[in-house]
Amino acid sequence: MRLFFFFALLLFSHFSSWSQKNIHFERDSTMIRSIFDEALVRGEAYDQLRSLCKDVGARLTGSASAEMAIHWGVQRLQNYNFDTVYKQEIQVPHWERGTTEQGWFKTPEGTLNKVNLLALGGSIGTDGVLEGEIVMFKDRDALLKADRSKVKGKIVFIAQPMNQKMINTFRAYGGCYPIRGHGAADAGAKGATGVIIRSLSLSEHEHAHTGTMSYEEGTPKIPAAAISTKDATKLEEMLKKSEESFRFVMEMDCQQYPEITSYNVIAELKGSKNPDHIITVGGHLDSWDVGEGAHDDGAGIVHSMEALRILKDLNYQPKNTIRVVFFMNEENGNRGGKSYATYAKESGQQHIAAVESDRGGFAPRGFDVDGTEDHLALLRSFQSLLKPYYLHHFETGYGGVDIGPLKDEFDQIALFGFVPDSQRYFDFHHNHNDIFENVNKRELHMGAGSIASLIYLIDKYL
Amino acid sequence: MRLFFFFALLLFSHFSSWSQKNIHFERDSTMIRSIFDEALVRGEAYDQLRSLCKDVGARLTGSASAEMAIHWGVQRLQNYNFDTVYKQEIQVPHWERGTTEQGWFKTPEGTLNKVNLLALGGSIGTDGVLEGEIVMFKDRDALLKADRSKVKGKIVFIAQPMNQKMINTFRAYGGCYPIRGHGAADAGAKGATGVIIRSLSLSEHEHAHTGTMSYEEGTPKIPAAAISTKDATKLEEMLKKSEESFRFVMEMDCQQYPEITSYNVIAELKGSKNPDHIITVGGHLDSWDVGEGAHDDGAGIVHSMEALRILKDLNYQPKNTIRVVFFMNEENGNRGGKSYATYAKESGQQHIAAVESDRGGFAPRGFDVDGTEDHLALLRSFQSLLKPYYLHHFETGYGGVDIGPLKDEFDQIALFGFVPDSQRYFDFHHNHNDIFENVNKRELHMGAGSIASLIYLIDKYL
Repeated sequence: MRLFFFFALLLFSHFSSWSQKNIHFERDSTMIRSIFDEALVRGEAYDQLRSLCKDVGARLTGSASAEMAIHWGVQRLQNYNFDTVYKQEIQVPHWERGTTEQGWFKTPEGTLNKVNLLALGGSIGTDGVLEGEIVMFKDRDALLKADRSKVKGKIVFIAQPMNQKMINTFRAYGGCYPIRGHGAADAGAKGATGVIIRSLSLSEHEHAHTGTMSYEEGTPKIPAAAISTKDATKLEEMLKKSEESFRFVMEMDCQQYPEITSYNVIAELKGSKNPDHIITVGGHLDSWDVGEGAHDDGAGIVHSMEALRILKDLNYQPKNTIRVVFFMNEENGNRGGKSYATYAKESGQQHIAAVESDRGGFAPRGFDVDGTEDHLALLRSFQSLLKPYYLHHFETGYGGVDIGPLKDEFDQIALFGFVPDSQRYFDFHHNHNDIFENVNKRELHMGAGSIASLIYLIDKYL
Repeated sequence: MRLFFFFALLLFSHFSSWSQKNIHFERDSTMIRSIFDEALVRGEAYDQLRSLCKDVGARLTGSASAEMAIHWGVQRLQNYNFDTVYKQEIQVPHWERGTTEQGWFKTPEGTLNKVNLLALGGSIGTDGVLEGEIVMFKDRDALLKADRSKVKGKIVFIAQPMNQKMINTFRAYGGCYPIRGHGAADAGAKGATGVIIRSLSLSEHEHAHTGTMSYEEGTPKIPAAAISTKDATKLEEMLKKSEESFRFVMEMDCQQYPEITSYNVIAELKGSKNPDHIITVGGHLDSWDVGEGAHDDGAGIVHSMEALRILKDLNYQPKNTIRVVFFMNEENGNRGGKSYATYAKESGQQHIAAVESDRGGFAPRGFDVDGTEDHLALLRSFQSLLKPYYLHHFETGYGGVDIGPLKDEFDQIALFGFVPDSQRYFDFHHNHNDIFENVNKRELHMGAGSIASLIYLIDKYL
């Protein structure tokens, strides 16, 4: 009986994915081979990324370089002669790092240890030099449980590292994300004067990693910064060995400014059959203000643009409209994603799917899907077509920050997140190492081929 | 009828892999999780690789640094207190690059273009300055078909690039390998005075890539070198545009010396049940004499050593003897692999399996197996256990150069080749970029975890 059940299940699972979509294997595999050939032999993503990184550079929302990135995006999309290229106006926050940013810890004997430090995005400045006794917590829970008297008037150091055991490094990131996002609010609520965190990275190196944080209404705002993993390890080890107190000294003149106007950049290949059915593919155009935003998310920008170019250059006539969106402000506000979802709803068009690339330009592994069981079955029915390109991950998961808000507006939409290999991502994420030179051409182009292939298959079979 | 056949096949394929081995899923997945935790949290492979690259460096067979590498290997294996550590004496070729190595091409107008050039391993020197008219061939076939009168007295340039379309980059390498290996013999047979080839790399950059070549009895020996892909593209483009002849000037004082004595380095964990059944795991200790042999094959050395360390530190008692072999002379002779197979046969022991890592320290994809249908089925029965670690490639394929000769001695042996992602490999292969800094710690440690897991599973179920 159990054996029968097992076989019945087997049959059912194969039958359902087999019969559900009449995948035209030969035609589709020929098309996907052409897509990858185009991506690998005549691919333009790498040169486009070089230009975005070197001609524009880091491009934090609200900065002059973010404005230049918008100009760059419009121009590059126009050069490809897509059917439409336009900008969607949005309001965005504007925070600047300023020009002063330094930190030291002092041993009980008064020895100075300069650390590499980056203010977290959104932090207030220190208003001159801030100095205070360090109180260390091994993780956020320990801080939340601590008595106010232990924290008041001190500078909180949260030492929690990302978990090396996680094979998907984004899970390890997720585990530490609340420390960066809420550490200042948590510590401020208990009377701390500042907070420093161990950088969110799996690599032990000298560069600090920034990222967004926010304050909570009703709790005092205190300055927040990340120190490099190397500095954090050193400080933690010294604190553990010592019974006397250490002090931290920091100065930062970062500042929040009034909101300003910015833009999402949009281009389309019009659908031949259902022009009002939209498949969105995108990444985010803004980046942090250190490095060059190469993996995060220059890769996603050039992946999306290249996917559209490849389909156009192969003379593919999509049934549905395929729309590339360069989202603004993913890093510190997601105003681009939210405003796009509102705009999409108000347009009266039917948004059937969206694909996001925001996990770097590494060798492809597959796709996550955030949708129905049918959407997962559909994605899995593509598996044999994509296996020759070493894609193997087709699972329920997360689409992406930029496309996420579409789900609130369209119940039936399928969101797909491009999944490249994640082992190196947090070496580069939000720090000085996220530069063009750390992106590999073939890995980047394999990603563009994977995304173009998925869009082709969605357009045909969704 | 056809549908029935399809279902019958399905049942059969699932049934065979399901029933064949009584994989104890829970116990094994717990063990494999422990293996990866050890590799990722307390892994030593990266630090071992740093030492091999920085304390020893490049280590071409026959060189003093190869001797130091043997010393290093013995010491490192002894420090882990494995059951046995010993050396196997072998005879090896001895070739040296010398101290002079340069090249230029001259346009018809006499403009000099200096190129980055590396003598191919095994080449004779130029005996002073060699100059001659360049004759270009688009590939090896074109050279083989060419009339002797077109080649005689000239320097042959074979412009063939590796094929960017190949997803498995080792296939692209295989397509160009004969140019490097036989180009000198092919050109020499037609009276050429020298041969230069486009470096075997998928990346357009300024470093030349070396590698082994050989002469054929009865054909004149001529000097052979690789020029960088960047130089090769430039030369090819200029030659295509010009109707007049270009000249090539080269000087190399590389030289072959008499054979000398060297060693494979061996260590074991003795089998508790079948100590005379051997599972070999290895990589090659020698490297080319440029860069630091980090991916090729320092990664394989530390993968193998680390796999044994992990199993030992987790107190795993193998049924069979697990033997690590650091093979000498893979790059230019494979004497280590050949001698080891002979030694293995003469020992009277039963060699049941061998695993090789010689495709770099990149993120794991899976394993190739060179064996019977049963061996493939066995490997595939491990698939669900290894899927959480993003291993997905379990196919019939190549084991490796070092373990290959074991097959001639043991009919029933299963050879496994570790398959990491191959996109970046030929950026670094046999050139100045193959240094420690181009290896990622987590990717390397994921490889060690994968190999240790495979050995555990082979030991239990083969």
